[in-house]
Amino acid sequence: MSHRLGIPDDQFIRGDIPMTKQEVRILTLAKANIGIADTVIDIGAGTGSLSVEAALLAKEGRVIAIEREPEGVDLIKANAAKFAADNLTAILGAAPKVMDGLPQADVVLVGGSGGKLVDILACANKLLKAGGRLIVTAVTVETLSATLSHMQQVSEFSVEACCIQVTRIHPAGSSHMFKALNPIYIIACTKR
Amino acid sequence: MSHRLGIPDDQFIRGDIPMTKQEVRILTLAKANIGIADTVIDIGAGTGSLSVEAALLAKEGRVIAIEREPEGVDLIKANAAKFAADNLTAILGAAPKVMDGLPQADVVLVGGSGGKLVDILACANKLLKAGGRLIVTAVTVETLSATLSHMQQVSEFSVEACCIQVTRIHPAGSSHMFKALNPIYIIACTKR
Amino acid sequence: MSHRLGIPDDQFIRGDIPMTKQEVRILTLAKANIGIADTVIDIGAGTGSLSVEAALLAKEGRVIAIEREPEGVDLIKANAAKFAADNLTAILGAAPKVMDGLPQADVVLVGGSGGKLVDILACANKLLKAGGRLIVTAVTVETLSATLSHMQQVSEFSVEACCIQVTRIHPAGSSHMFKALNPIYIIACTKR
Amino acid sequence: MSHRLGIPDDQFIRGDIPMTKQEVRILTLAKANIGIADTVIDIGAGTGSLSVEAALLAKEGRVIAIEREPEGVDLIKANAAKFAADNLTAILGAAPKVMDGLPQADVVLVGGSGGKLVDILACANKLLKAGGRLIVTAVTVETLSATLSHMQQVSEFSVEACCIQVTRIHPAGSSHMFKALNPIYIIACTKR
Repeated sequence: MSHRLGIPDDQFIRGDIPMTKQEVRILTLAKANIGIADTVIDIGAGTGSLSVEAALLAKEGRVIAIEREPEGVDLIKANAAKFAADNLTAILGAAPKVMDGLPQADVVLVGGSGGKLVDILACANKLLKAGGRLIVTAVTVETLSATLSHMQQVSEFSVEACCIQVTRIHPAGSSHMFKALNPIYIIACTKR
Repeated sequence: MSHRLGIPDDQFIRGDIPMTKQEVRILTLAKANIGIADTVIDIGAGTGSLSVEAALLAKEGRVIAIEREPEGVDLIKANAAKFAADNLTAILGAAPKVMDGLPQADVVLVGGSGGKLVDILACANKLLKAGGRLIVTAVTVETLSATLSHMQQVSEFSVEACCIQVTRIHPAGSSHMFKALNPIYIIACTKR
Repeated sequence: MSHRLGIPDDQFIRGDIPMTKQEVRILTLAKANIGIADTVIDIGAGTGSLSVEAALLAKEGRVIAIEREPEGVDLIKANAAKFAADNLTAILGAAPKVMDGLPQADVVLVGGSGGKLVDILACANKLLKAGGRLIVTAVTVETLSATLSHMQQVSEFSVEACCIQVTRIHPAGSSHMFKALNPIYIIACTKR
Repeated sequence: MSHRLGIPDDQFIRGDIPMTKQEVRILTLAKANIGIADTVIDIGAGTGSLSVEAALLAKEGRVIAIEREPEGVDLIKANAAKFAADNLTAILGAAPKVMDGLPQADVVLVGGSGGKLVDILACANKLLKAGGRLIVTAVTVETLSATLSHMQQVSEFSVEACCIQVTRIHPAGSSHMFKALNPIYIIACTKR
């Protein structure tokens, strides 16, 4: 049976590392349009929540998760084991350096850049097959603007960007309160 | 090959009937957690964009789309044909009346209620199997509050609600402008 | 000199009681259209941040702040003293009971209702002069929907409602992160 | 009597030129903290809605509105006349060129830049008195990021930025629909 998107947040093993929330994970993966045999590279993989769902979608392909915090790599491995995602490999290291020697990819997800965003985007471009998707999720003004600006310059991508703002509704007695999650920008770039 | 969520808006045939936007469609269907052999009922199906994607997900199951506008039913049929969703049936009529005699369902989607929301929810409850999902999308205060209130009373459902606000980023010369879509509330109810 | 709206949040003395954020305070008070000699009643006044700014606007009028938590009343008094708002009176008690005997008002602000919203709205209506403004701020679905529904029934008010969602931008190293505040609904009702 | 912020949108004379919506106008002017004798320069004044309200606040001061579209200048003059803002002067021309020879200012509002944002910010800085406020409203990613980046470099300003997203609630029969306005970023910079 094929994977159904949207594992609830509380099913992932989490440390102190920030985790992509369910709704953003769903939209990011849907925009990545992951096929069953795809090769996916997830840069700044954090707890691995995106990597795990990507691996379940690409069940005949593989996912390579790059994370520079050892605590993160441990979480990714723990989550991969929990969800039986044995096609998920976690690599400790900083992009873009650690991207050398990675295979050609159908999808590159960029969730963290450690200040090397433009180099990572250039490196991701080299790894991406024609028709491949590069999906950047941005929680800062600088990542949003630098990604849009870079994509205008390289001009090999068709770009579609949006901001997602989720407000969760929490029961509070017999009432329901509005609780905002932080907005996230998703920049989806398809290589021509 | 399994369907990948998120057909772009402009690929659907559209009339003057409002269409669920891609990001909301993706989240609604992900929260509906549609399985490959599921039976899905889509009430107030509009252009059929949700129904079509549901039918592609439930490719060994079936989708029944209910719509009270003849123009809508024509659009649903045209979109079903365009995307080869031959497991999608469109029914002209108003819920809840037209729900009599429908089969037991794994998923009921409620996108429009024509003023009969509470009756539709009660009727949907009868059709839903244990473990089934009832997903209401609300664009009015009244649909949001009546759905939450009804779910508190019937108490057979676990309920999870959120508001999704999407801002699309449009190129304008060398700039990128923020353009808001209307917010939509998604109330996802799982029958115990 | 007349008061300029928008005292920064961190200038108020705060306890553990939730405080209306600056942007919401500004919009609430602007929509209340407070005149220099107005009588203002603030129900569920919390820390008194709204009451204090209202009192500085209505410097030849008066503000009566109602709060049922003794800790809140202490904060209101402390903030009134800090900002020299000597036309601000804090009353300990629960609305609508404590509203008996209050003077006719130009403006009634409702920020908390302790489960007695409809009774408070009815009582506020009796206290309001013709042309007076009743401003409800809602952080729950139920307050929003009950206020809109009540206003449709009494029909003596023209109603204008909106949701305000503020995202603050925080410096983080050389970057700027998006941090959402919770959305608030403001229902502004003008008595005909 | 002092001006009360927040003239309803439909009271302004409007052409095809985009107008700052009431809620954004209120917040922009509150963050500008306009005093009764202030000199205010409004760059890219559009229909003049901000300029008019600024002029009513600075009733013993003056407002200079700069607009490069003749249609806009006509609207500014018409709105100034309608609201009796005789301390408001409209100048036809493009900033920063037309800013030469303007008086020292307490407040500079930047609502449009015609591609010359950084030059305008530098020029505004020269015109601003110590303690003066420079308020940029941004509807594009580029204006937002360039303003934040410029302010980091010049370092004479304390900066506070936020995004305002207003959703209006419209009656539709006996229901109330959510209708989003486009989000606007407000970058408020106070000169040390």
